[in-house]
Amino acid sequence: MTDDLREQVHAAARRARVAADELVLATRERKDTALHEMAAALRSRAPEILEANAKDIEAGRAAGLPEGILDRLALSETRIEGVAKGLETVAGLADPVGEVLRGSILPNGLELRQVRVPMGVVGMVYEARPNVTVDAAGLALKSGNAALLRGSSTAEHSNTALVEVLRDALDKAGLPADCVQLLPCHDRASVTHLITARGLVDLVIPRGGAGLINAVVEQATVPTIETGVGNCHVYVDAHADLDMAESIVLNSKTRRTSVCNAAESLLVHADVAEAFVPRITKALQNAEVTIHGDEQFTRQQGVVPATDEDWGTEYLSLDISARVVDSLDEAVRHIARHGSGHTEAIVTDDVRAARRFTARVDAAAVFVNASTAWTDGAEFGMGAEIGISTQKLHARGPMGLSELTSSKWVAWGEGHVRPRA
Amino acid sequence: MTDDLREQVHAAARRARVAADELVLATRERKDTALHEMAAALRSRAPEILEANAKDIEAGRAAGLPEGILDRLALSETRIEGVAKGLETVAGLADPVGEVLRGSILPNGLELRQVRVPMGVVGMVYEARPNVTVDAAGLALKSGNAALLRGSSTAEHSNTALVEVLRDALDKAGLPADCVQLLPCHDRASVTHLITARGLVDLVIPRGGAGLINAVVEQATVPTIETGVGNCHVYVDAHADLDMAESIVLNSKTRRTSVCNAAESLLVHADVAEAFVPRITKALQNAEVTIHGDEQFTRQQGVVPATDEDWGTEYLSLDISARVVDSLDEAVRHIARHGSGHTEAIVTDDVRAARRFTARVDAAAVFVNASTAWTDGAEFGMGAEIGISTQKLHARGPMGLSELTSSKWVAWGEGHVRPRA
Repeated sequence: MTDDLREQVHAAARRARVAADELVLATRERKDTALHEMAAALRSRAPEILEANAKDIEAGRAAGLPEGILDRLALSETRIEGVAKGLETVAGLADPVGEVLRGSILPNGLELRQVRVPMGVVGMVYEARPNVTVDAAGLALKSGNAALLRGSSTAEHSNTALVEVLRDALDKAGLPADCVQLLPCHDRASVTHLITARGLVDLVIPRGGAGLINAVVEQATVPTIETGVGNCHVYVDAHADLDMAESIVLNSKTRRTSVCNAAESLLVHADVAEAFVPRITKALQNAEVTIHGDEQFTRQQGVVPATDEDWGTEYLSLDISARVVDSLDEAVRHIARHGSGHTEAIVTDDVRAARRFTARVDAAAVFVNASTAWTDGAEFGMGAEIGISTQKLHARGPMGLSELTSSKWVAWGEGHVRPRA
Repeated sequence: MTDDLREQVHAAARRARVAADELVLATRERKDTALHEMAAALRSRAPEILEANAKDIEAGRAAGLPEGILDRLALSETRIEGVAKGLETVAGLADPVGEVLRGSILPNGLELRQVRVPMGVVGMVYEARPNVTVDAAGLALKSGNAALLRGSSTAEHSNTALVEVLRDALDKAGLPADCVQLLPCHDRASVTHLITARGLVDLVIPRGGAGLINAVVEQATVPTIETGVGNCHVYVDAHADLDMAESIVLNSKTRRTSVCNAAESLLVHADVAEAFVPRITKALQNAEVTIHGDEQFTRQQGVVPATDEDWGTEYLSLDISARVVDSLDEAVRHIARHGSGHTEAIVTDDVRAARRFTARVDAAAVFVNASTAWTDGAEFGMGAEIGISTQKLHARGPMGLSELTSSKWVAWGEGHVRPRA
C-alpha cells in the first residue's frame, strides 16, 4: 500500500517534470492567458466548487472540527471571487523568469548573464484553507513551475474540484494540465514521499505548524523552505514614546491573532516599566488578552505567571508573554534565544538604540516603530505571497514570485577556450 | 567518546555564534584590517607553516597516498604567498553586508529596505588542500560569518598551523579569534555532528566527492549547499563550426582534468557525425584521452565501448564518454538524465539551436560556443570563490561573497499600525 502511494507521488512528480519542461519555454503572454482562463473558469464553475465545499463542511462538522477551522475551510461566492481576482493580480505582475540579475562582457569578449529560471517542480504542503490551492497554483504557474499540491484531507472535495477547474483551464489555454496536480491527502506518508523524492522534486514549501515543519526538516532530502512559525516580539525601549508603544503592542497582538506575524511576546525596558507595565496591562486586558508575565507583570491584577515554556510559545490566540529587561542587549539576547526569526519590533525614539537593534536582531524582518503585522508580501509590494520564510537560505521573509525561482549563468562566445593557468 | 565529539563540535559552534554576534557589528574597515593582518602573518610565519606541512607530507607518503594527492597537500613559499595575496584580494572586494537589495517608501510612509546580512555560523567540509582553509576563512570573515572548518585528517598539521596563525592575526586586529575554528578531523562523526547541529550552525558547504555530498544530503538537518560534482557535456550541433568544436572539446576535457568544470561527455549531432567523429577521436587520442564511445564512436580505432554507467560518470581523468544523438532535443534529454547540473555547452552557429539549448538545459551554467572551463568565480568577476553550487536553492554556480549572505527586511516607521482587513 505504502509502496503504491510512493509510486503515485513519484508518478505525479514525473508528469510534473514533463509539464515543467514545456512550461519553461512558455512566454509570459501564454502564462497570463492561462491565469485569466483559470480565473474565468473559477467564476463560471463556482456552483460545482461550492457543492464540493459543502461536502467538506458537512464532513468537518460531523467530525467535530472547531468553528475556527470550519470557517477557514468554507468557500463562498465572495471567496471564490477573491481567489479569481488574485489570479488576475498575478497575471498583472512582471514575469520573474528571464530577469537578468547580473551580466557583463568579460575582458575576453564572452557575454555573460545570470538570469532567473524556474525551480522546476515545486511541492506545497498546507492545511485547511482551500484558497491556498488556487494561490499556490497561480504563483507556481507564473514563475514557470509545475506544482504538486498536498492539501489537507478535510478540504479534499474542495481541492479536488478546484484543481479540476484549474487543469481544464490550463488545457484550454494550451498549457499542460499537469502544471497543477493534487497529491493524495489521506495518508501522512504522501508528505514523506514528496519530501524524499530527490531529483524528481526541486523544492518543497511546507506551510503549517511547528510539527509539520519539524517533520519536514528531519526527513526531507529535497530542498525545503521553512515557513510560518512566528514567535514575534515587541520591545519597548527606555526611550519609547509610550503612546506609540501601546498602540503598536495592541495592533501587533490583536489585529489578527491566528497569523504568523502577530506578536506573541512583549519586552519592556526597566526604565519605563513603572510607567508602562500597568498601562499596557490594562490596555491588553481591555482587549481581552491574557498576559503571561514575569514577576513585575504579575504584580498587576489578572496577569498569569509565565512559565519557561511561555517564552517560546507561538500562541496564535489572545495571549501574550511579557517581561521586563534591564537593557536593549538583554532584549536582543532574549529574542535570539526564544524568537523564531520571523518579525521583531522595537519602539524607540533613540537612533542609536534603533540602529543597534536592527543590526543585532537576526530575523526575517526587524521593525522600528511599526507593528509586526506589516510583514506581508502584499504590503511589501510583492503583489502576492506564497508564505513567509523563516530560514536564511534562499528566501527570507515574504515569498513572492521571484522567491520561487533559481538562476542560471548563460554565456555566449565565439569559440572561447580558457588558457591553461 | 562520540558524545564527547558531539559536545566538542557543539561547543565550537556556540563559540562561533558569540564571535558571529560581534562580527555582525564590525565595519568593513575592521574586517579588511584583519584580512591584511592575516596575510602578513601567513608570510611572516611561513617557516612554521611549512614545517607543519612537511609532517603531513611525510605521514602521507608513509601512508602511501598517491602523488596527485601529495601534490595537492603540499605547501611552499609560493603557495603561501598565493593564499596571502588571496586574502588581500578579498579585502579589496566590496563588503556584501549591508548592501540594499530592494527598498522603497510604502504608500503609508513606512521606509522599507531589504539588506544583505551574514548567514551567521558557516561550516565548511573539505578535502586535502590546506589552501582552502585560508580561502574559506577569508571569504567567511569578509561576509561577516564565523567559520567552522572541517578539513581532512591528511592535512591536520598544516590546517592546525594555518588556523593558529589566522586566529592570532584576528586577535591582533581586535576581532574574536573564534571567527575561525578548526574542527576535529579524525572521525567522520564530526561531520555528522556539524550537519545536524540545527540552530547552532546556519549553513554547511561540503566540498568533495559524490560520497560526501550524498552523506550530507541524507543526514543534514542544517541547510547545506551542494557543490562540485560536475558531469559536464559538450554538445556539437548540426550547425557547429567543426574547427571551433574541436578546440572547445579539447579545452573542456584536457585543460585540467581534476576540476569540476572539466567536460566528461561529448554529444555529437548525427548530421555532423561522419565528419566529426573520426576527427575528434584522433584529436582526443593525440591528447591521450581515452574515449568511452557508443557504436558510432567504437568504429574508430582505440575507442572503448561505453557502458550505461559511463554516461553518469565524472571521470576527473583523461577519459570522456561520447555518443551520437539524432537531434538537439535528444541531447537535451541525455543531459537532463545524466548531467549533474553544473556546466553544459553547445557548439553551434544556429541562433535557434543556441536559444533552445540555453532555455531548455537546466544547469548552473549553459554556454554557447565556449569551453566548460569558464565556470569559475574569479573568471566571472567575483574576485574569489568558495565552491560551485550545483543546487537550485539560494546559490547556483560559482559562490562568492554575496552567496555567503542572507537578507533581512528592515523598516523604519513612526508608530505605523496596520488597519484591520
